[in-house]
Amino acid sequence: MSRKRIIIDMDEVLADVIPKFTALYKKYFGKDLKPEDYAGKKIYDLPGAAHIRNHLHDPGFFLDLPVMPHAQEVVRWLVGHYDVYVATSAMEFPNSLSDKYQWLRREFPFIPWRNLIFCGSKEILSGDYMIDDHVSNVEKFGGKALLYTASHNLHETRFTRVNNWPEVRAFFERELEREKRGA
Amino acid sequence: MSRKRIIIDMDEVLADVIPKFTALYKKYFGKDLKPEDYAGKKIYDLPGAAHIRNHLHDPGFFLDLPVMPHAQEVVRWLVGHYDVYVATSAMEFPNSLSDKYQWLRREFPFIPWRNLIFCGSKEILSGDYMIDDHVSNVEKFGGKALLYTASHNLHETRFTRVNNWPEVRAFFERELEREKRGA
Repeated sequence: MSRKRIIIDMDEVLADVIPKFTALYKKYFGKDLKPEDYAGKKIYDLPGAAHIRNHLHDPGFFLDLPVMPHAQEVVRWLVGHYDVYVATSAMEFPNSLSDKYQWLRREFPFIPWRNLIFCGSKEILSGDYMIDDHVSNVEKFGGKALLYTASHNLHETRFTRVNNWPEVRAFFERELEREKRGA
Repeated sequence: MSRKRIIIDMDEVLADVIPKFTALYKKYFGKDLKPEDYAGKKIYDLPGAAHIRNHLHDPGFFLDLPVMPHAQEVVRWLVGHYDVYVATSAMEFPNSLSDKYQWLRREFPFIPWRNLIFCGSKEILSGDYMIDDHVSNVEKFGGKALLYTASHNLHETRFTRVNNWPEVRAFFERELEREKRGA
């Protein structure tokens, strides 16, 4: 039997963009944001902060993002059981293309380059599982979708939620166990 | 009814890479190649020419490729009837990412950035139609595939073939006519 396919998002799933946005908010507004300050939204959706989103165009923005805790060890484990793809929305920010490529090859060298996708819309991607923080991606996906918790999706209740990478591993351990039982 | 999706390849379908390869061949071997010299293969598959493929890593290689004759007018017409995506293998040649983005936005500005995909393998893409010169892409596609004629696929007989962009338009005119009749 061929291996099942998992499509993993990059920003706010593998890569943590929040520290850059809180630093930019502090630079412009002089305030240290706490997670409760932006619960239910993106930081650039705070009043007067829309221009912070423009920094996604900065060359290098995506080059040095911290990796989400335990993402590397769990994705490495997933690669042993599934065909793991990373699909990241990059086309709106063309300067991100090179940054994202370098970041993914450096931090996740065990994902082959053949399995990287830089796209606009993700509607065109087919697979068995998707892990993504954007409701707009998750709701159009044809397979099983896991909503990875991020500030902007905290109030969403329609999808299976994973709060961190250990929870992702636990989910797929159950899936593998279920398949082994033939269920 | 939602519009059907066409996935179009870039190299040797929208963009003509042959003039660069024949110029490189002439530079290294002093010979003007004719199409019959590389019928059934790629130019870098000629004896001793494998190193020419390394030029795909050159920054700028993909930036100034000629557009295939009539590609712009036919794709513009397709955009009026279908959801048109361009999917191009770029991950093996990371320097191509920025070049390809600029080329596609310049030569095909009527294809929205949301519909561009830079990938490794195309197996993950789902759609109704694919236009591609590589048998390996066409044979794994779940929809109707059109093999766009290129030197390296001349001997392939398994797929519906299109030799040029006017033939692509004629094919889709027939498809639209057939759908209108409800066939």
